[in-house]
This record gives sequence, structure tokens and C-alpha cells, in this order.
Amino acid sequence: MASYRLDIAYDGAPFSGWARQPGRCTVQGELEAALTQLFGEAVGLTVAGRTDAGVHALAQVASFSVARSREPTTIARALNSLTPDAIAVTAVSEAEPGFDARRGALSRSYLYRVETAEFQSPFERGRALHHPFRLDRAKLERCAELITGRHDFTAFTPTQTEHTFFERTVLAASWQEAPGSILEFRVEANAFMRNMVRILVGTQLEVASGRRETDDLALLLEGAPRSRAGETAPPHGLYLSGVAYPAEGR
Amino acid sequence: MASYRLDIAYDGAPFSGWARQPGRCTVQGELEAALTQLFGEAVGLTVAGRTDAGVHALAQVASFSVARSREPTTIARALNSLTPDAIAVTAVSEAEPGFDARRGALSRSYLYRVETAEFQSPFERGRALHHPFRLDRAKLERCAELITGRHDFTAFTPTQTEHTFFERTVLAASWQEAPGSILEFRVEANAFMRNMVRILVGTQLEVASGRRETDDLALLLEGAPRSRAGETAPPHGLYLSGVAYPAEGR
Repeated sequence: MASYRLDIAYDGAPFSGWARQPGRCTVQGELEAALTQLFGEAVGLTVAGRTDAGVHALAQVASFSVARSREPTTIARALNSLTPDAIAVTAVSEAEPGFDARRGALSRSYLYRVETAEFQSPFERGRALHHPFRLDRAKLERCAELITGRHDFTAFTPTQTEHTFFERTVLAASWQEAPGSILEFRVEANAFMRNMVRILVGTQLEVASGRRETDDLALLLEGAPRSRAGETAPPHGLYLSGVAYPAEGR
Repeated sequence: MASYRLDIAYDGAPFSGWARQPGRCTVQGELEAALTQLFGEAVGLTVAGRTDAGVHALAQVASFSVARSREPTTIARALNSLTPDAIAVTAVSEAEPGFDARRGALSRSYLYRVETAEFQSPFERGRALHHPFRLDRAKLERCAELITGRHDFTAFTPTQTEHTFFERTVLAASWQEAPGSILEFRVEANAFMRNMVRILVGTQLEVASGRRETDDLALLLEGAPRSRAGETAPPHGLYLSGVAYPAEGR
């Protein structure tokens, strides 16, 4: 029995999300098909952060166990040649027996990119939300401060949900400028719920454009219903940007 | 009579280059068709840096003159709605009468992006040359030093050429690291010849990977024939990144 860790980047555009679904092209489906072909046994992946349709990953982590071991470099080359170009397996490493990319993770980090230029850069199509409106930077920063900490994020996930527990701990949240009229929202939490980052971004954009009071966000973070929060920002601005593990847990 | 300056960004992938060609989709062709429709008269563009098929622009500059003036914001909105998404007119401004984007330019700057990671990032496809080989950074820096200055660049443009004068003055040249295993070659010159940056990059990559002596580059810069220089690097790593004008010449 051998366990492996995969580090993966993908452009979410061509995929119906991470999770395998019959008849759909998904990141998990493509990787598992390639692994099954390579190892000659059915291989199932466990992932740190399931991403929805159209969401990107800069540094996703997944794990799997197989009966017979193979060289990490062989696995990396095989996966990169057998999967679509929109998926890159950036690293393969042997893991401790039983390493679980999901349960072993201490935190996940996401990045949401917003382009504020009046006319969208051809290099940002599908890579950032085009939002050519005046945004109050101070309000965005205040929002990020409010989001940081332990809160009930019921308002920030769809009403119909698999989740049963709605508290999450946001370890860090910030807005920063990047070249090319880009604003980046970076957020790290122990765990995220479905659509959580996208609803947080949609709500903050409403605050920063004056359509919602900043104080309203504080109330939303106390377990308000989904209907009270803002719109779900589109998936193409969102990137899973990192997963943290204990030093000994790789 | 009114003269205008256009600042333009484009993804070169879908275009047969800047210059209008019958039956081909070109950046000039798309923009001129839109301007002609907007102004109701035939409009011809003059451009600072003609780019070849597949070459990108972050900050191209073009100029035109028309009989009847229109508001710059009207022109910008019309051009962005009438041209493909791969073209963004980022700014339109009224220019001095007779402003000529080509003859008025003091210098042009180009950027060439090389990704050295073993497996190409899905976000760099079509945006950087994938070159997963060891490169000697010190040699690249030495190459950039050699390139800087006034030289005879005959070796760095095709033998069959419209050019009659082969000396150019490189004002600045450097290699820098950027996030994501990217090496960027930035070069500014009074003017460039066809394929000049791409052959400079191809030749430098041969030096930095040990397939050519550094001193060889010095000899090439003294008017050697094209056959002596390296390969022409592909167009998708190249970006026209800026054009400089005298302060009063906009």
C-alpha cells in the first residue's frame, strides 16, 4: 500500500467542477481515469477543497492510495500527458500512509480577482470578474476586518445545503491591489462552505459600491439567512490558492 | 480635422498580426472597420509597433485623423463594443493635429515571457513560452548587457526583408524573475526590426542552456548574417509592452 499527494493547478473554465459526475467533464474524473489507467486498479481521489463549476485552482491538493507503488516522477509525467492541458499536476510526492488531503488540512486559502478598469483586458477574460464601477477601498478593508474571526456563515451558503454546521474560522482576509486595475480578495479559513467566498465577495462589492451599509455585513455574520446576503459573485474570478498541512502531515 | 490617439491591448492569438491583410482577421482591420462605421468615412490607422501573427500587446499606440470630431469616450465605447473581445481600447485621447503614433514615438518596449516549470501552468498556455530546461541566469544577464547599446542587428531579422538599415539602439535590456517560474526579458529600443526580439530571445536561450558561447552573441551583434543567430522564439511569449513619446507629443 502506497499513499501519494498530488499538487494540482487547473483552469476551471472547461470543467463541471472538481467532483466526478456521470457524463460530465470534471477535474476529479479526468485525474482518476488517468490514475486508473496508470496503476491498473481503480483509484479514488480525496481532495482538500472541492471547487464548483468554473472555479480555478492554483494549488489544489489531492491524495490517493494504491496497492503497488510507482515513482512520483513517473506519476507526474503520466498524469500530465493523459489529462487535458487545462490541468497541470505540478508535483507528486509520497505521503505518510493514510495521508488524507481533506481531513489532514489545517486551512484552505482562496483568491478572488476583480478587474475595475472600464474596458476588460483581453488577458483577464475568464480570469477576473469585470466590475467597472467605483469601489470604496476603505470599505473593502473594513469588510475584510469584519469577516476575520469565528462567525456563523449561514448567510453565505445556499439554503439547500449538505452542511449541518455553519460556523467557520476565518484566519485572515484582506483586499490588495495588483497590476492592471485588479483588486484581489484573499481569504484563509479552517474550512469553507459551498459558495462561501463568492457570496462574501458579492456582498462586499455591494458595500463598497454604496448599495449596502458596512454594518449590515456584521449582522450577516451572526447567522442571518441566505436571503439577507448579497449576490453570488461568478466563478471565473475565484481561485483555490493554497492548502496548509501540519509540518509532519505531508 | 481632428487627430486621436488610441491605447490598445490585445491577445494576439486570434489575429494574423496587426497589419491589415485581405481576407484575414487582423487587429488593424478590426479597428479600422469599427472606426469607419463610427465616423462614416474611411479611417486609416498608423501604429507605433506592427506586431506579427500571434504577438500580444499590453500597450500598443495608434493614431488617426478624421474630418469630424467625436467625444473620446464615445469613440472608446464604440470601438470596444464593435471589435472582438480579444481587443481592448484602453484609452482614447485627442492628439495634437498631425500626431503620428509611429513617427512620433521615441522608443518601443517589448516583454518576452518564458515559463521554466517542468509542467506548464494552465494559466500560461498561449501567454508564455514553455521552456522546461535549466537556464543559467548569470549568462542571461550577461547577454542582456551585451545587447544593450547601438549594434548592427542584421543577424536578428529574416534575410528577406523590407529593412534597409540594420542598426538599432537598445536603451535597456534585462532578465527578471516573476511569480510562477516565469523569466521575463524586457527590452526597450528606439525601433525594432521584424522578429528582432524573438530571435534575440531564441539566441539567448541557446546561450543560457549551454548550446552556444556567450561571446558568440557579441560577434552576432556586429552585423553577422541571419544564419549565424539562434532560432526565432514563438510569438505567443511576446508582448508589445509600451511606447514612449515626447511629453508634448501626445
